[in-house]
Amino acid sequence: MYRSNNCGELRIADIGKSVTIAGWVQKGRDLGGLTFVDVRDRYGVTQLVFNMDENADLCTQARRLAREYVIQAIGIVRERSSKNANRATGDVEIEVRELNILNESKVPPFTIEDETDGGDDIRMKYRYLDLRRSPIQSNIIFRSRLALETRKYLDSQGFLEVETPFLIKSTPEGARDFVVPSRLNQGQFYALPQSPQTFKQILMVAGLDKYFQIVKCFRDEDLRADRQPEFTQIDCEMSYVHIEDILNTFEGLTRHLFRQTLSIELGDFPRMTYDDALRLYGSDKPDLRYDMQFVALNDVVKGKGFSVFDEAELVVGICVKDIAEKYSNKDMKDLTEWLQRPQIGAKGLVYIKYQEDGSIKSTIGKFYTDSELNSWAQRFNAEKGDVIMILSGETEKTRKQLSELRLELGRRLELAKPGDFKPLWVLDFPLLEWDEESGRFHAMHHPFTSPKKEDIPRMLHGDHETMKSLKADAYDMVINGAEIGGGSIRIHDRTLQSKNFDLLGFSKEEAEAQFGFLLGAFEYGAPPHGGLAFGFDRLCAVMNGQSSIRDFIAFPKNNQGRDMMIDAPSPVHQDQLKELGLELKEK
Amino acid sequence: MYRSNNCGELRIADIGKSVTIAGWVQKGRDLGGLTFVDVRDRYGVTQLVFNMDENADLCTQARRLAREYVIQAIGIVRERSSKNANRATGDVEIEVRELNILNESKVPPFTIEDETDGGDDIRMKYRYLDLRRSPIQSNIIFRSRLALETRKYLDSQGFLEVETPFLIKSTPEGARDFVVPSRLNQGQFYALPQSPQTFKQILMVAGLDKYFQIVKCFRDEDLRADRQPEFTQIDCEMSYVHIEDILNTFEGLTRHLFRQTLSIELGDFPRMTYDDALRLYGSDKPDLRYDMQFVALNDVVKGKGFSVFDEAELVVGICVKDIAEKYSNKDMKDLTEWLQRPQIGAKGLVYIKYQEDGSIKSTIGKFYTDSELNSWAQRFNAEKGDVIMILSGETEKTRKQLSELRLELGRRLELAKPGDFKPLWVLDFPLLEWDEESGRFHAMHHPFTSPKKEDIPRMLHGDHETMKSLKADAYDMVINGAEIGGGSIRIHDRTLQSKNFDLLGFSKEEAEAQFGFLLGAFEYGAPPHGGLAFGFDRLCAVMNGQSSIRDFIAFPKNNQGRDMMIDAPSPVHQDQLKELGLELKEK
Repeated sequence: MYRSNNCGELRIADIGKSVTIAGWVQKGRDLGGLTFVDVRDRYGVTQLVFNMDENADLCTQARRLAREYVIQAIGIVRERSSKNANRATGDVEIEVRELNILNESKVPPFTIEDETDGGDDIRMKYRYLDLRRSPIQSNIIFRSRLALETRKYLDSQGFLEVETPFLIKSTPEGARDFVVPSRLNQGQFYALPQSPQTFKQILMVAGLDKYFQIVKCFRDEDLRADRQPEFTQIDCEMSYVHIEDILNTFEGLTRHLFRQTLSIELGDFPRMTYDDALRLYGSDKPDLRYDMQFVALNDVVKGKGFSVFDEAELVVGICVKDIAEKYSNKDMKDLTEWLQRPQIGAKGLVYIKYQEDGSIKSTIGKFYTDSELNSWAQRFNAEKGDVIMILSGETEKTRKQLSELRLELGRRLELAKPGDFKPLWVLDFPLLEWDEESGRFHAMHHPFTSPKKEDIPRMLHGDHETMKSLKADAYDMVINGAEIGGGSIRIHDRTLQSKNFDLLGFSKEEAEAQFGFLLGAFEYGAPPHGGLAFGFDRLCAVMNGQSSIRDFIAFPKNNQGRDMMIDAPSPVHQDQLKELGLELKEK
Repeated sequence: MYRSNNCGELRIADIGKSVTIAGWVQKGRDLGGLTFVDVRDRYGVTQLVFNMDENADLCTQARRLAREYVIQAIGIVRERSSKNANRATGDVEIEVRELNILNESKVPPFTIEDETDGGDDIRMKYRYLDLRRSPIQSNIIFRSRLALETRKYLDSQGFLEVETPFLIKSTPEGARDFVVPSRLNQGQFYALPQSPQTFKQILMVAGLDKYFQIVKCFRDEDLRADRQPEFTQIDCEMSYVHIEDILNTFEGLTRHLFRQTLSIELGDFPRMTYDDALRLYGSDKPDLRYDMQFVALNDVVKGKGFSVFDEAELVVGICVKDIAEKYSNKDMKDLTEWLQRPQIGAKGLVYIKYQEDGSIKSTIGKFYTDSELNSWAQRFNAEKGDVIMILSGETEKTRKQLSELRLELGRRLELAKPGDFKPLWVLDFPLLEWDEESGRFHAMHHPFTSPKKEDIPRMLHGDHETMKSLKADAYDMVINGAEIGGGSIRIHDRTLQSKNFDLLGFSKEEAEAQFGFLLGAFEYGAPPHGGLAFGFDRLCAVMNGQSSIRDFIAFPKNNQGRDMMIDAPSPVHQDQLKELGLELKEK
């Protein structure tokens, strides 16, 4: 037996017991005749004590222990004279009788403390040491718990977890696939799934009724910050449901997860249409932890000689509370410059300060009277001390810019309180997106999404322009401005699915080659069905108030798609390629 | 709302309720003025009734329904006049007021009943229809339940589920990897994991203490019957454990699973060394549902003029109970021919019938007296009516042949009773296996397996012959003759691991290139650890008394590694290959 107890569980009640513990040396301290060693494992830290007067050999041995040595200590639990209230085991220590070194350790390349001195690259290379740090280890433990609670809840609702295959078929639609050459079928390739979408629909046709899976998915994309080539979804599908059934089920799941893991009651989720989300927040995933709804000003700003507004398709602003005094001219200039960076691309920022003394300060005083500017304030419910910030230009771009400004102000003013969670359903997404560049429609959600029932006749018989106005039975779950999940009611009718492929530019042959099995399945009694997928990595991060998913993944890849610890990808033997019937192309 | 109730839940207590159900048409029957339609979903079958006298239109509509149509029926629950005791809903039926066809169905290519007329290929192609059949659907439901119970139990024991990466590094040791070309790192490849072995060990070095994962693994092997290129493991690892801790933990898990899903109490698992398993059953995974232990006869058969035995390295037999009368000469001849097929390769079968009348009939009466043959009977505890069957030859081959004979007799005599489960731990496997052909050692379990502590000095300093006798801290869990799980205590010391790589024929450079990260990790405080992996597909099949894993996998591949439903693998676009820097080799 290596241990009778772990390093996190000894308490006052254990005093006098003979125990054996094992773990890593966190640190040692020599105080006169006494040596203290903190020993750590996943469960906590326990203090060992060695007495030079009582056992000089053992104490000398303890003094030679270095950080991260793996030790086993046998001794008696006793009460500490100076207790440590910050530690669960802080009332006791172990008076050691026997000490065994189970393994030694070189000096770690960075400190294994909550705050480390290690940079990203070295922490990725020595991921096993980074994972020993309490903040990362807590993330991994949280993730494990969240997965289990997800499964328990979905099981309680009658969902079955069904494993779908990883070696599937490459479909050029959507993001780029990772492909896997087949040795037994030379010249042919499997693809790794970007999601189990078609398989979960097939499971509904198969009558499984309620499916879920916590499952790895793969996308061979150029990696932007905080994207991973492999990521995890909570993937779900239900039969015989309308949109309301799905929203209720997964709102229930999300409430359950927050309750069980964070003891937070989320209440009912508000709902907002996609059109409203864009109109009021300039984003299809608004962060509702703070206000600053958009207010359009077109009807009051035009025709006063200010050509910027006169020529703009949209003039729209937000009201920022209580910063009229706090934000100096320099602050406003900073903000303007931030907006003018190419990433945002705004031409400039118009603002109106409603100062505490009742006066108004603005960048457009030349064109508008104080009385006009005061009347605008009413639209925003602006009060003394507030500042209205206004952008103008082409509608879509301006909304995006103002949304960025709103989020940036949220960050700069620290408007989002830790532990505050604001969930939201965004509904009624468009079915299709017109892409000017390629001159074709893209699926806003994916090609299997059903139009709203009332839009089906227009979809089947409408003209090109009509298609742009079709709405889908698609929905996103948004929490604190992050898209946590998304889904839709699916098409379950062969004709409608074929029409959708047609609109998306598939030839009949392409549709048949890629999705013939699904079209075929729709002819053998496909039930109405729909579903949703949560981004599990993102959910973990958002629930912990963190913006990066990387430290919720045990072994993440870097921005070049490399695993720095194992050094993958890597060249393979020529023999392996030969067996696969492949050769590397000359560069 | 598509339904108020599913097709499996209406009972006598629901009589008089107005309900809405939805599902698939199982079958219809027209009986005079009444039409009955059975409607089916995952939960059961419910009878609908339509009355021609009361509503001729509706009844006519019902008579047009065909098999596998998806319908919704609204009506009143009423008591059936002729009840069906074989069906949970058999006391009631729904008197239908409104009928809606949600989707039509072509005539399915095979019958969707417990016993189907569909062959393997067509069932694979239309997997969504095969999955509607109750026996397959039950398997998938069982699998889901087994996975959840596994997770609940391991969670209760402090295990964390941690996801390990799928895009890892190719290592030529062991089975063949599936590789994934990297676009961002042209000319380099990821590999899909054959198991998360090194990652779970890294998690132990990282201090995660107890890890598990239900995870897909991949092997690009030539597919023998009932092998899948992707398969699922319950993968586990623990720190600070001796072999006893691991056996107890996973015996506990297995008992829990049998109790929760089958209401079967397994009791304590017997244990047997690898050497004993081979000696007594000729197999490292003996089926203990029946007896027929091997008894060696070398000491009593030699020197009596029977050259076959005289020249044999091993003469060994089993006692088959109560078949002396039942098995005719022809039956014995059949069995002999079965043994002589090239797959088994026995030269012949010697048998001794202890007949009910006290006489002895044998194929070797020329060489041995009845008194001698009677004395052999005592060794086997053979009684009147029993037959001793004896094989001879080279030890290893003869044991294998006799093991096959034992299993074949188990099948022919139906000695294994349905619902009987005989678990077993097989312990003390050899560390290394000498491969004559390649002239090198192979790891019996895998290269990370620890030798038994007492064998470490011999491993570090012994000669070539010594290596063949090293025993490992490795163990297999066997149930009913199937290997359900296997694992080992791992090496956690860099020197010992390097020595093992050395013995396995790795150069220093190869070991460093492939497993440098693990060797490195062992220098930073690696704790003692060990683990085990269950074959999850196999476990599902064995627990249901089935020999094939295929119907416990929602979307299995065929023996050529093809998914017949989606038709994968398939050719990919030339552009995709170009992006990956690959070209197909001319044939």
